[in-house]
Amino acid sequence: MPFVDTKRKTPEMSQAGLSPTHTVTATDENGQQRTVEIAGEAPLTLKVDNREIVTLMTLGNQPEALAIGYLRNQKLIQDIADIRSVQVDWERETVFVETREGSGVLDRERELGRRIVTTGCGQGTIFSCTLNDLYDIQLPSIPIQQSVIYELLAALSRHNQIYRSAGAVHGCALCRGSDVLLFVEDVGRHNAADAIAGHMWLDDIPGEGTIFYTTGRLTSEMVMKAGQMGIPVLLSRSGITHMGLELAQAINLTLIARAKGRHFLVYNGAEHMRWDATV
Amino acid sequence: MPFVDTKRKTPEMSQAGLSPTHTVTATDENGQQRTVEIAGEAPLTLKVDNREIVTLMTLGNQPEALAIGYLRNQKLIQDIADIRSVQVDWERETVFVETREGSGVLDRERELGRRIVTTGCGQGTIFSCTLNDLYDIQLPSIPIQQSVIYELLAALSRHNQIYRSAGAVHGCALCRGSDVLLFVEDVGRHNAADAIAGHMWLDDIPGEGTIFYTTGRLTSEMVMKAGQMGIPVLLSRSGITHMGLELAQAINLTLIARAKGRHFLVYNGAEHMRWDATV
Repeated sequence: MPFVDTKRKTPEMSQAGLSPTHTVTATDENGQQRTVEIAGEAPLTLKVDNREIVTLMTLGNQPEALAIGYLRNQKLIQDIADIRSVQVDWERETVFVETREGSGVLDRERELGRRIVTTGCGQGTIFSCTLNDLYDIQLPSIPIQQSVIYELLAALSRHNQIYRSAGAVHGCALCRGSDVLLFVEDVGRHNAADAIAGHMWLDDIPGEGTIFYTTGRLTSEMVMKAGQMGIPVLLSRSGITHMGLELAQAINLTLIARAKGRHFLVYNGAEHMRWDATV
Repeated sequence: MPFVDTKRKTPEMSQAGLSPTHTVTATDENGQQRTVEIAGEAPLTLKVDNREIVTLMTLGNQPEALAIGYLRNQKLIQDIADIRSVQVDWERETVFVETREGSGVLDRERELGRRIVTTGCGQGTIFSCTLNDLYDIQLPSIPIQQSVIYELLAALSRHNQIYRSAGAVHGCALCRGSDVLLFVEDVGRHNAADAIAGHMWLDDIPGEGTIFYTTGRLTSEMVMKAGQMGIPVLLSRSGITHMGLELAQAINLTLIARAKGRHFLVYNGAEHMRWDATV
């Protein structure tokens, strides 16, 4: 029997997270100067084996996970074991990802061709459409207790530290039951979702049986990302779009939105709800 | 004296705006079915002289202005007179922009090269960075009365019809004093800003002396777009980012954020404020 290395290969990583907020002086409506916190924002160019892929505008507090999750959600990298290292260099505003030999990442990038995007700088929330693949997904039906939704919303309200101090960020979380497994805030909700995807790979957390929470809207893109990660439930403070709903219906994703306090609306998958907290 | 054609050349345009909301059934926290409105979302591929430029995910209610404004803000088109026609075909999810001979749009696209983006589908809020150009901008200093801010916020609260019925959209407005000249809602705030830029060209409204309002955050991208359009004041319900602030400082753009009710914070340009409503 051959020797089996049971240790997962994870990349060598820098730990170059920026402080997420800056203290500045603003003038309030009484003409008085006040010291306030604002959210950071920095351009981060993602290079894979020295080939430029995209520039993301990010809070910059979890750049390594963001880079990994972006490559995962763009389907440029199929397995985290294909990544040798992830090194952030803020002086060059660049994250350098090095792949292992034979990972074929750059072939895939060439193959995807026009789907992949490079921007000289600026915001790049680009989603390489994998709609055809997406319709093959059928998420498993899992029951969701109403009481768990309420416990989870209470737990989540303790996590959005950057938003509370500085605003201008969205939060995304991966949850199991009422446990918040991961919580990421970023200036773009797509970045926050990508960083969650990166952490899921790094920590070997599968999507099944989890709930993905976001403060942002449930658009087609958020539904696609959840579906690709195998996450069966999306929960949001905000509303949904029609295309988000249609995709959720197609892949059996439970869509719960406008969730604040005791209120929420189930737009898809109401048959999975267990109404154990109805007054 | 040569004959002077004083009529501005504006493009021939379809009027293919979609209805912005859809009526669907959702289940509330009491397990009761309710009829609710949700925001539309549709992919719209922008083709210029049959060359694919980008696919935007949009509410779709003002697709012609969105296409024109996108091309303007991306600096692909320098003058609206260069656009011969803008025709939206929702069956093909495409807006066809035809330019006049010699407009050089596609040469510019090739020249900008990697800055310009095509995505097979999905969200494309891409900003072709023109930071170097941007730093040449110095916006004129204009005084801003506190009372006008309050009147404007009251006026704006009467415009966000789609948000009030369906949520999941951002609103952007172009204002002069307390008059709301243009108001656009879209699933992406960048789309809403681009559509405003399109309407400004179509209606020949210059940026000078105006205020740009958005429900969204004042990130670097929003500051860049306002600066390029010559708009000296940005006003937002939400917060700001550090990069947005730095850019605003560099180009003398007045930045007023967290504006709700009687409260606001001036992050840059407080010296332009006239405190005529301080209690």
